[in-house]
Amino acid sequence: MSSIIALLYGADRPGIVARVSTWIHERGGNVLHADQHLDRQENVFFQRVEWECAPRTNSIQEGEDFQKMAETDLFMSVQISHQNDIARIGVMISKADHCFHDLALRVKSGEWNAEVSCVLSNHTNLEKTVSSYNFPFKHYNLTSENKHFIEKEQIEWIKDQGVDLLVLARYMQIISADFLDQVGCPVINIHHSFLPSFAGAKPYHQAYKRGVKLIGATAHYVTEDLDGGPIIGQDVTRVSHRHGPAELIEKGRDLEKLVLSTAVRRHLQNRVLVYQNKTVVFD
Amino acid sequence: MSSIIALLYGADRPGIVARVSTWIHERGGNVLHADQHLDRQENVFFQRVEWECAPRTNSIQEGEDFQKMAETDLFMSVQISHQNDIARIGVMISKADHCFHDLALRVKSGEWNAEVSCVLSNHTNLEKTVSSYNFPFKHYNLTSENKHFIEKEQIEWIKDQGVDLLVLARYMQIISADFLDQVGCPVINIHHSFLPSFAGAKPYHQAYKRGVKLIGATAHYVTEDLDGGPIIGQDVTRVSHRHGPAELIEKGRDLEKLVLSTAVRRHLQNRVLVYQNKTVVFD
Amino acid sequence: MSSIIALLYGADRPGIVARVSTWIHERGGNVLHADQHLDRQENVFFQRVEWECAPRTNSIQEGEDFQKMAETDLFMSVQISHQNDIARIGVMISKADHCFHDLALRVKSGEWNAEVSCVLSNHTNLEKTVSSYNFPFKHYNLTSENKHFIEKEQIEWIKDQGVDLLVLARYMQIISADFLDQVGCPVINIHHSFLPSFAGAKPYHQAYKRGVKLIGATAHYVTEDLDGGPIIGQDVTRVSHRHGPAELIEKGRDLEKLVLSTAVRRHLQNRVLVYQNKTVVFD
Amino acid sequence: MSSIIALLYGADRPGIVARVSTWIHERGGNVLHADQHLDRQENVFFQRVEWECAPRTNSIQEGEDFQKMAETDLFMSVQISHQNDIARIGVMISKADHCFHDLALRVKSGEWNAEVSCVLSNHTNLEKTVSSYNFPFKHYNLTSENKHFIEKEQIEWIKDQGVDLLVLARYMQIISADFLDQVGCPVINIHHSFLPSFAGAKPYHQAYKRGVKLIGATAHYVTEDLDGGPIIGQDVTRVSHRHGPAELIEKGRDLEKLVLSTAVRRHLQNRVLVYQNKTVVFD
Repeated sequence: MSSIIALLYGADRPGIVARVSTWIHERGGNVLHADQHLDRQENVFFQRVEWECAPRTNSIQEGEDFQKMAETDLFMSVQISHQNDIARIGVMISKADHCFHDLALRVKSGEWNAEVSCVLSNHTNLEKTVSSYNFPFKHYNLTSENKHFIEKEQIEWIKDQGVDLLVLARYMQIISADFLDQVGCPVINIHHSFLPSFAGAKPYHQAYKRGVKLIGATAHYVTEDLDGGPIIGQDVTRVSHRHGPAELIEKGRDLEKLVLSTAVRRHLQNRVLVYQNKTVVFD
Repeated sequence: MSSIIALLYGADRPGIVARVSTWIHERGGNVLHADQHLDRQENVFFQRVEWECAPRTNSIQEGEDFQKMAETDLFMSVQISHQNDIARIGVMISKADHCFHDLALRVKSGEWNAEVSCVLSNHTNLEKTVSSYNFPFKHYNLTSENKHFIEKEQIEWIKDQGVDLLVLARYMQIISADFLDQVGCPVINIHHSFLPSFAGAKPYHQAYKRGVKLIGATAHYVTEDLDGGPIIGQDVTRVSHRHGPAELIEKGRDLEKLVLSTAVRRHLQNRVLVYQNKTVVFD
Repeated sequence: MSSIIALLYGADRPGIVARVSTWIHERGGNVLHADQHLDRQENVFFQRVEWECAPRTNSIQEGEDFQKMAETDLFMSVQISHQNDIARIGVMISKADHCFHDLALRVKSGEWNAEVSCVLSNHTNLEKTVSSYNFPFKHYNLTSENKHFIEKEQIEWIKDQGVDLLVLARYMQIISADFLDQVGCPVINIHHSFLPSFAGAKPYHQAYKRGVKLIGATAHYVTEDLDGGPIIGQDVTRVSHRHGPAELIEKGRDLEKLVLSTAVRRHLQNRVLVYQNKTVVFD
Repeated sequence: MSSIIALLYGADRPGIVARVSTWIHERGGNVLHADQHLDRQENVFFQRVEWECAPRTNSIQEGEDFQKMAETDLFMSVQISHQNDIARIGVMISKADHCFHDLALRVKSGEWNAEVSCVLSNHTNLEKTVSSYNFPFKHYNLTSENKHFIEKEQIEWIKDQGVDLLVLARYMQIISADFLDQVGCPVINIHHSFLPSFAGAKPYHQAYKRGVKLIGATAHYVTEDLDGGPIIGQDVTRVSHRHGPAELIEKGRDLEKLVLSTAVRRHLQNRVLVYQNKTVVFD
């Protein structure tokens, strides 16, 4: 039996938790997890609540009813999902394959409740690799001239495949604002630095030049602001003067895989709420 | 105005969260934080909830009423505290002073809502140091022969001082089961290893001999089982073949301070529930 | 042009560094890296030195000459390798595939100067997976009765394949002392705990039961002493009361991959010296 | 008997290590530690070597002779120090006391071979605290108008006290370029962010606003470029949406103490070489 997961946020008011938990209890539901946060500076309330319905309940209907209640009575923004929903992931890649393999193996192993619905690349070198996982692959011969046109084609395929989440797995192109407007699903990117340090191109070379003693990776939702979207996860690893740019790149690969997969997991498990270009992560 | 903090746990049953949150809401209380955990293997429910009472409410009375309700109606074990309670800490030390200074400076700086009510040592070398903070100090000339008798004296002073929490800040003596039975408050110890590795004497020497690549520290509640009580916090730091026992001891000191102070903070903020020789830490 | 790497250790005596560096300099060699360690307690000297030969030098011959000099004149134990040697790795697996994929992808990507020469399993479920990388695979139907016989067959194949390093990538069987005696190459194992905590079976369940706040993984050379061999690398990750055994196992997988691959890299780059059941790692 | 520590760097050329080690060996010296680094991109060689002189040697004279040899024959930049030199530290503070206490306690405990020669503040609130350690204290009533004049007075006292290292222990004023030119000793600062992120004022508030998932601290040598000098050490700690600016500040204090004391230790043990606005740290 599948549980329901609700993510809600909105202006704080007395009795939200009481109302939510009583509503579920009255229908015979059993709360499995509940996590909440109150931003006292902004007076905004956030909650993630997961519950099992009573036996023989139509959980789709119950989710819709809950959403109506929370929107109408509590003035909350609400996202409902079901624990056994299988998310359809689209992946965009360029030449590097380490993040792609990492995602692909996690999907194949059943670590996540997800499948890979399409893989898009501006290069052809990984076509065989992608096919070995039996994932649909398309190559887009992107140039600065045809970008607008190609992006339209990409969006078309992404929509055809019913993608719920688009992951940029070291995709080395900048996504346009139009693309983001029209793609119709969240987009997660991995940036190979500890943002906001070293946004933009060649972050490992920037890090080497500055002589930092830790390098990092950051997974974030993509917005129009390059490398400026809400951060979902970050991590760092220790480096020294012995690490030149090549060694930083090599060390960074493991970091990128870990940080990206953590962010994708959090998103897929409906643990992330975005608010004021920041995230609340119930992990 | 002071908020109320309730820690509760007991057999899970439907509607606990609804009941708790409704109870608070009906009295005009405002939930500031609520965190819960369900051990599905054992079917045990844990909750930490903190709320502000309605204006002009007697919060002491409300805390007692809540406790009665949760015990009687929900069959929970309940601990109530008030956010502005000032905890009275007793500290036991031997010759090393680093953990003592760390605790003392945190208390003095107001980082915690606490005061140091008494400091007990089996040595005299830190008497002046303790006095410079204006903390009451007593030296106990402990020997293997007089241990039973000295422990009685120690307990007497600890009780006279109204101690709420006893901290063993690198106290190098084993506390007897009788002492624990009679002292009437929780006792936190810092052990200078990553337990359960290297319990007992000279853990850094044991770690050196084994050639581990990380050393650790563990803060735990003291039970009759030496270094076997519920773990409140642990951390590690990287070492290499270059670190002999002396270097491990030096690196370890910073770890011990951090891990012990984190555990004391968690306890003082009523974030720790003990269950089956483990802890649930709502941090 | 390939560089020479020498690992040496032995009783310390005056002038070792001078002798080594002068010897290389006189032949027109250029030292790229040199790292040394003096265990003052045991009076043992350790060094890793890597140098480029003068142009048109026979580097194989120079390595042999160096070894003779260091053994005869400095009474050192010496291992010589060449930077462009391609190591031949044997891998033993059971049912779990995460460490295998991680190793396989690193080898395929050229991250290491190595190839996988054979993969042995006591199960058949990963045969296709292994074959997809074009690695030779053999299944051994191991039982408690035929272990002695099967191990002989395994050793035969390992030797036939010219294996330089054997990696137990979550191989769930205990290797016998006879096997270790006869296999003729070092064996690295990944143990899924922070050793010496939780040696033996089901370490994540042991960790859960003890209520530790960090879980770990340890890569070590295999010796007759179960989970007691020299530690090459360790790491930990933070866990809480929210993690049951299943979550610990999942979190642990990423740790195991990272710790095992780090240890294999260190070994392949000739950075590890074993001494008194401990390692000196020049990293 | 005191050992000699030499730090050298300069254009790489064949035979430096051979020459250095032979020179020491011929005089009956015994190398305790030697660490070297070759920046192959820039062709610059770095070395830290520590040795005990032969009995009855004048180690001051031997240090001077070594320096002459390395400068004249090897064209290296050389710094010589002696292991038992007691460094004289000057500390500049404002209102916050946590880094000051941390440094003071390490000096008092003998963890470092150092003493505190003077403490300068632009506030008076810590005068008693400083005096309780018996460190000389002076208050400077700094304003934007009198800065130039006050800095001259500060430098005068620092020079009178024979300061070898000046530590800005959360000193909240910007040091002028003139001050740096004239103070005659290195200056280490602790910045409460993971540089280059959040340079300048109120880094914890900047970090909160950006929604980062880790906060950091950075210790660096002070140069004219605000928060832009060579980084000696950095570390980070995990935070979440639950941490407002006040919690970040509190968590950050422990990080600042650790990062600053690590950097000071590295400097005092002559482990740091500065080159092209970066550091080589032989730790």
